[in-house]
Amino acid sequence: MLFISSILNLGITMEQTTAGIDIGATYTKFGLMRRSGELIASGRIDTKGEFHAYLDELAKNVKDMIKETGEYVMSAGIGCPNGNFHTGDIEYAANLPWKGIVPIVRELSGRLGLKIKMSNDANAAAIGEMFYGAAIGMKDFITITLGTGLGGGIVSNGRLVHGHHGMAGELGHTMVKPGGRLCGCGKYGCLETYVSAPGIVRTAMEFMAKYKDESPLRHIPFNEMTSEDVANAALEGDSLAARVFEYSGEILGAKLADAALHSDPQAIFIFGGLAEAGALILKPAQKSLNENLIEALKNKIPVLQSKLSGVTGAIAGACALALMDD
Amino acid sequence: MLFISSILNLGITMEQTTAGIDIGATYTKFGLMRRSGELIASGRIDTKGEFHAYLDELAKNVKDMIKETGEYVMSAGIGCPNGNFHTGDIEYAANLPWKGIVPIVRELSGRLGLKIKMSNDANAAAIGEMFYGAAIGMKDFITITLGTGLGGGIVSNGRLVHGHHGMAGELGHTMVKPGGRLCGCGKYGCLETYVSAPGIVRTAMEFMAKYKDESPLRHIPFNEMTSEDVANAALEGDSLAARVFEYSGEILGAKLADAALHSDPQAIFIFGGLAEAGALILKPAQKSLNENLIEALKNKIPVLQSKLSGVTGAIAGACALALMDD
Repeated sequence: MLFISSILNLGITMEQTTAGIDIGATYTKFGLMRRSGELIASGRIDTKGEFHAYLDELAKNVKDMIKETGEYVMSAGIGCPNGNFHTGDIEYAANLPWKGIVPIVRELSGRLGLKIKMSNDANAAAIGEMFYGAAIGMKDFITITLGTGLGGGIVSNGRLVHGHHGMAGELGHTMVKPGGRLCGCGKYGCLETYVSAPGIVRTAMEFMAKYKDESPLRHIPFNEMTSEDVANAALEGDSLAARVFEYSGEILGAKLADAALHSDPQAIFIFGGLAEAGALILKPAQKSLNENLIEALKNKIPVLQSKLSGVTGAIAGACALALMDD
Repeated sequence: MLFISSILNLGITMEQTTAGIDIGATYTKFGLMRRSGELIASGRIDTKGEFHAYLDELAKNVKDMIKETGEYVMSAGIGCPNGNFHTGDIEYAANLPWKGIVPIVRELSGRLGLKIKMSNDANAAAIGEMFYGAAIGMKDFITITLGTGLGGGIVSNGRLVHGHHGMAGELGHTMVKPGGRLCGCGKYGCLETYVSAPGIVRTAMEFMAKYKDESPLRHIPFNEMTSEDVANAALEGDSLAARVFEYSGEILGAKLADAALHSDPQAIFIFGGLAEAGALILKPAQKSLNENLIEALKNKIPVLQSKLSGVTGAIAGACALALMDD
């Protein structure tokens, strides 16, 4: 490792730079990152339009970026919703403009002339944490991404768990309440209908209906309310908003206990927009995790905020996929 | 493989024979098995008494068996409740006579002069299925053991998931109903309080209280009723007993969906005493699994009865642990 760092310091880093692409519902972010974690450049385009036209624009932007920076890039990683590692296809992504199954790795590797590995965004976040974040050296951990949905990336024996159909870690669709809230996937009661940015807003609505506390949230219509509004109200002492986060954290913690009973991680990392709420969600989640664990695991598994965040975090995850052994 | 089989046929199989030990709450079974799956000999002692006296008796029996058969044995595997693969200790096993943490691998390998690998019985069953059963060639699958409790063995990327604390796959303690039935682990509402041999009896009691159907089960006291009684009644057309299995299978299937969303297996195998109930439990479990899966996995994961059973199955699992790469 020392040898590698001195090479980096000399600037001879060519083969260590990868391109990372994070495809979100609204924006597609991309960037170039060195093995050391240094972000060389980044950019973004809208995630929209006809699939091939979108790919042409994305490929042009990435190629221009490589040319302008003069970096030597041999491989790329893509993190995106419903990305299947085995096939390289995006499969039935509810929040992306392309319906059904779209062969993104095949199409984009042709355009870029790069070897590409793809997985879903939660897996990318987990591998990013292992290469660049707080999970360096860990062989067993879980990353939970909290944003529009809830995703899971599970690392076991030092390797990402992809699963036979490439669908491992879909923890957002584990069951919280049979017959509960309607989920985007068509089922009722899925974890992400309670624990996610929209889940927080749904709980705020439910609590406003159930309780009588005055709250600034009572002046915001459903369609305009964000989880940040609820977090800010909680931080300013609003009791109803505080209870929304306690309730969400409790549900998250109980399901993290289930997850821990599956793969027994050293730690659980929370990544993504809603992770910015910090202790508001982490504290009740940690408490509830411990309450729901068997004796042998109680108080042994910390729930931690990811060391990666924002655009850099998303690109780091995608770049780490490219660096991963398989 | 052909080369290996011809060696086996010539009888020169010395280095391919392993000793397997399955420690249960009542009996400790042990045997010698060739790599081909042929059980050479087996025996059992009671699981009881002071720890060192028990180990002396077990070691004497296994050594005598090796001597009498003339097999060349270099390694052994142990499957037992709460067996920690990393440490070689049995940790806080509720149903074994030795309390706290007992260093079984260290003590027994000294007495036997063999290299020993140990894991919990569900992990042993999973590895047994991979070496000798229906999971040959599979890289991602789950084995559920159904007996006095419910255990899980998860194989991912071709390797057993042990977890950081050696406690992965403890699926019997995932949550079914917050505040539900009291579990041996001290929590309420754990899966194994509903889906296990005693869980079946508890459900029969609940259903006798709830419904009015006449049933042969109404003549058996709680302490004398077994899950076999309920299975036999169901097979003979008793409507109440049939509903007990439907209910248990539904709960199992819903939690298998959660498990599948974690590790995305190619198949799920059911092993152990209660697995003998066959379609009574497998059919409603398969239906409920599919109902609780996301579209991308629906109808893709079969719930199958293990190809291993009884004493041979338990010993095969322990022997497979000895053969496993790590």
